Parts: sequence; structure tokens; C-alpha cells
Amino acid sequence: MECTGTFEGVYMGKKLSTLGEFGVIDIISRDLHPRHSWVKTGIGDDCAVLDIGGGLSLLVTTDMLIERVHFLPQKITPYQLGWKALAVNVSDIAAMGGEPKAAFLALGLLPTLNEVFVHELKRGLIACADEFQVDLLGGDTVTAPTEVTVCLTVLGTAPADQVVRRAGAKPGDLIWLGGVVGDSTAGLHLLLDKPGNVPESEREQLVRAHLEPQPQVELGRWLAANSLATAMIDVSDGVLQDLWHVCDQSGVGAKVDADKLPVSPAARQFASSVGLDARDWALAGGEDYVLLFCTPPEKRDEVLATCPGSITQKPTKIGRITAERQLRVCFDGVWSERAPSGYDAFKKK
Amino acid sequence: MECTGTFEGVYMGKKLSTLGEFGVIDIISRDLHPRHSWVKTGIGDDCAVLDIGGGLSLLVTTDMLIERVHFLPQKITPYQLGWKALAVNVSDIAAMGGEPKAAFLALGLLPTLNEVFVHELKRGLIACADEFQVDLLGGDTVTAPTEVTVCLTVLGTAPADQVVRRAGAKPGDLIWLGGVVGDSTAGLHLLLDKPGNVPESEREQLVRAHLEPQPQVELGRWLAANSLATAMIDVSDGVLQDLWHVCDQSGVGAKVDADKLPVSPAARQFASSVGLDARDWALAGGEDYVLLFCTPPEKRDEVLATCPGSITQKPTKIGRITAERQLRVCFDGVWSERAPSGYDAFKKK
Repeated sequence: MECTGTFEGVYMGKKLSTLGEFGVIDIISRDLHPRHSWVKTGIGDDCAVLDIGGGLSLLVTTDMLIERVHFLPQKITPYQLGWKALAVNVSDIAAMGGEPKAAFLALGLLPTLNEVFVHELKRGLIACADEFQVDLLGGDTVTAPTEVTVCLTVLGTAPADQVVRRAGAKPGDLIWLGGVVGDSTAGLHLLLDKPGNVPESEREQLVRAHLEPQPQVELGRWLAANSLATAMIDVSDGVLQDLWHVCDQSGVGAKVDADKLPVSPAARQFASSVGLDARDWALAGGEDYVLLFCTPPEKRDEVLATCPGSITQKPTKIGRITAERQLRVCFDGVWSERAPSGYDAFKKK
Repeated sequence: MECTGTFEGVYMGKKLSTLGEFGVIDIISRDLHPRHSWVKTGIGDDCAVLDIGGGLSLLVTTDMLIERVHFLPQKITPYQLGWKALAVNVSDIAAMGGEPKAAFLALGLLPTLNEVFVHELKRGLIACADEFQVDLLGGDTVTAPTEVTVCLTVLGTAPADQVVRRAGAKPGDLIWLGGVVGDSTAGLHLLLDKPGNVPESEREQLVRAHLEPQPQVELGRWLAANSLATAMIDVSDGVLQDLWHVCDQSGVGAKVDADKLPVSPAARQFASSVGLDARDWALAGGEDYVLLFCTPPEKRDEVLATCPGSITQKPTKIGRITAERQLRVCFDGVWSERAPSGYDAFKKK
């Protein structure tokens, strides 16, 4: 066996930095033909959907966070890391209209770490698990030589006839956001000590949006149970990219009024202090973990009027689904076509 | 926020290299009280067990492989990595008597890798998935800065009354191995170019045992369906350590006749060429992914006589469960007490 010491030199073809995240996903998901009849949805939505009988669907999702890629040790506490690693998976369950139920933790740790790190990581994970009624039921604990790695798999359930997928949006449908977008990217800029000013009181709000996301399980459940949403996704890669996933799988396009994006005054102020526009963070930043969903136009009043009081923030209407398969964005009253740009795991920014 | 650049310096307490893998698992699994009634088994077995109705249990397991810890790029092909990452999880399903059904892949890749690596990894994964009737249904693809990381979560099912756990072994029960142990460690020694001689024809057998393990799904299913096994586990950390998990959870001890361990002539010959004993590799090496199970003594003939012909290797009886909570091993006719030593993710060897 030849010893090159790395996987890089041995194989040919395009580098992943050129191929991009969706090129890699395309290779992996190509020509898969599930053989078991319980499979209702495989790769390509926020969760896989399995029919487990009794009128219930099982929802399954997995997300991996790696040090230096998804978090920086000096910028996040182990408590927050535990919270976030579970929360981003819970958000995928929310995006299908499900209730999260069970979590499985695969944890790569450096042997030089100490036990308080583990206690704190667990405390954050359990805080999130308690908040969203999730049981931690298993996992794997291994050595990681260089980067702390946290991989969570979460199982949830939903009534089989209430699962909301990405596909399903129809021309004329309204596009909504369940909460503020852009705060997470603003928080990341603050954590990275990028220039800009924001009052201390608002700094915490932005940083917390990035480090301790609040998945919208109750909103997702309410939309699903009341047959309001035709399509849904959570905003993890930015509004444009995630909306494009919905459009792509629904065979439609969309127009979004950026002036209507629910951007917080704090993010707006911070962005403008460095000559940026917080709407750009909302459109292409990501990691907001709020729900983006579509409803038939006649459901508009129902969404606004009957959204339960325990959901503190009312959804915001940001645009409309179109038959034309393109993304159009209105900025300060001017419409233009936009590429579905956002986070890509492999491409350089 | 203080910027130390690492997680190591900030927190106090014992280092994980002192605490060990089971100390970490103890912290994580302490004081967990599953709230959902579908949970039949949580942390502490090969799989979690969930009651999904219709007389079926859902089995869930997750395992993470990290470059330089679980595999070396110059010693494994991406095809083999894909196979192994799935096979070790399938083996956990087999160890509960289940049928594997669905797999979820979280993949950390270096942007400098190329697409052929991804194609090959997928080819190995799908080869294993086809062999064991598993559907690949989802995942996550992220950048890993330093080490390729492959985390698989596998779901399986079993009739609820046929799930075999680690707890359940009773004094007097026979202890069996479903296949050869020690070949994997021999293969690892060969891969690492450690001294020793073995004919070329047998070299491949040993190396393949390490790189392309064959989980014993059919054996596990047969044992479970015929109510033969009182307890079961797969040998991932070495016979002694994995047997000790069974003993610990069953509240019993065991005596093992090392002279009866199913060790291959190839491993025996290779070990003796360097003055080692292949039985030690079998007892404490690990990564064999064969089933270790216990049966009532009166089931002895049934196990040997009715094991279906498609299971090519008959199980081998290696010892007996005892009431005394200790591990005793017979080596060349001499019995002695042994600590349940084997692989530990964090402790130095």
C-alpha cells in the first residue's frame, strides 16, 4: 500500500472547494432507491420521513458541528455548544411540523480536555433537551485529535398527514418568516471583533442569536396541525438559499420584498455603523434557525389572527411564490433577479 | 470574552486522558430520565430501543470514525472507509437481534479532497448498504479542517419481544462467539508495518478483517427469533471488555477459556512470529465486530445443530457466566482473574 499520508493526492477529479457542498450532496444522493416501503421522504428535505404506522411519521435529521468551522473555542462556551448542537437539529424537526423526541450524540473530544468541559457541554445540551422535550438516548464518545466535533441525530414524530415538506409551494402562495433574520450574522460579526458599533444592551441579543438559537417548534407544529403551510424549511444557510430549496423542489420561483424582512433595530444599527445593510445578512447570512414557510393567499388572515399567544413573534409576510422559476428581490423599491447565494460548506467566501 | 484559542485551558478538573472513555460516558449518561413512554432502553446498550407500536421496536445507534484515530488515510481506501463506517453501526443493530433499515451520514470533508474520494466513499457505503438491506436516507455534509470525519446513525427494527439486550445473562449460561476474534488486530499490526511474518495469501484475510468487517446480522436475527440468547453484544473493544459490559449489566461474572477462542491459524502464526499470543489480541484487541452472546446451557445443542446453513461459521462456546462478579480467564490450563481491559478512547495505551 502506498503511503502518501493524506487522502488528497491519491484520487482525481474536481476539488470539493470547486464542486461545492451541493455538488458533494448530489454525488451522495444520486441513484439512491430506497427499498423499504416505510420510506416516505429520503435525502433532500429537512428530515427523512418514515411511516411507522398508527398514523404517525418518524422524522430523522442529523447535523455535525466541527471546531473552527462551525464554532471557535474562544467565542463559545461548552454550554452554548451543547445547546446549539441540539437546537440546530430540533430546528429541522420543527421545519417539517414535527415534535422532537429523541437525540443521539456522537462526540469527538480531545484527550487534553477536562471533565468540566464535558459537564458544561452536557448541561447546555440538556437545557435544550428539556426546553423542547427531547430525551438523550445514546451516542458515541471518541477521541478527536484536533477539533472538537459534535454530531447530533434527532428523531421526531408528526401525524403522517401533517408533515410539511419543502415541495408543495404553489404560484401565488405567500412567503412568511417566523422570526427575526440577520441577528445571527450580526452576532457572528461581533464575536469576530469586526468593526462596528452597537450598544452593549443590544450586543448580547445579537451574540445570543448566533450562539443560542431558538428553534420554532411550536410555530411549526401549529402551522402543520392547522394545514396552513404548503411548504416549509428552516433558515440555516440564509433566506435566499433556503427559499431557493423550497422553490427548486416545488418547481416554482419567488419574489421577496427585502424591505419587509423582519430585521431587528440592533442588527440594522450595527450594520449601518460599518456601511453595510442588515438585509444582506438576512438574505445570505444564515444560522437564524427561524422557519420560512408558504401558505395559500387566502390563509393570510388566519396566520396573523389565530397564531397562538405563546408564539411571541407573529410571522412576517416577505413575498410571494411565482410560476417563473427565478428569485427576484426588491431592495428599496427596485426589483432585480438574484442568485440563491448563501452558505456553502466547501466553497471559499 | 477571553480569547485563549482552545477549550483546554479554560475549564478545570480531571483530563479526559485520566478520566477515560467510560468516565466521560458516565458524566453524559448520569441523571437522564427519559420522559417519553416509547423509550424502552436509553444509553448503555448497543442501541437505544423505542416502542413504535404494531409489535415493533425501533433500534437506533450512532458511531463516529475520525481520521488518525480510527483510520489512517494511507492504510484504508475511501471505499473501505465507507464500508466500515456503515458496517460498525450495522453490527450494533445485529447485536440487539435487529434488522438494519436506514442510515444517516454526517460527513466532514477537507475542501482539498476531490470528487473521486466522495464517489469511492459512497461506493463502499452503498456496497455495505446493499449487502445488509439498508437505505441511505439523509445526512449532513460539512467542512472538516484537519481530519476526515464519518458519522453514521443507523435505524433498525425488531419484533418488540425479540430484542436482545446486554442485561439478561444468568449464572450457568454459556458464552459464545459468533466468529473469529483477533484477525482485526492482526490486520492492524500488518497495516502499521509492525514486525512479523505471514504468508501473502493470509495477509489479505487479516487486513480485510480490519478494514472490511462483516457484521453478523443473520446470526443475531436467528438467535433473537428463536429466543436463544439471554444477552448479546458485538465485539468492538475486545472480548474481555465487551463481555464485562454484559456481566456488569446482568449483575454477573464470567469465566472464559482462552484456549477455546476462535483464533485463526493466520493470526496465530503471525503473532507467534513476533513472540506474541493471538489470544491476547482476541481478548483485548477489538474491532472484530462478531457477536458475543449468552444462552441457557440447555440450548447448547440447539445452537450447534440448528444454526442455519447460510451462517457459514458455527458459533464457538468460550466460557460460562458465573454468579461471582469477576472475570476469570484460563490460559494454557491456568485460571486467573483478569481486569476487563480493552480499547479506551481517551486513555493512552
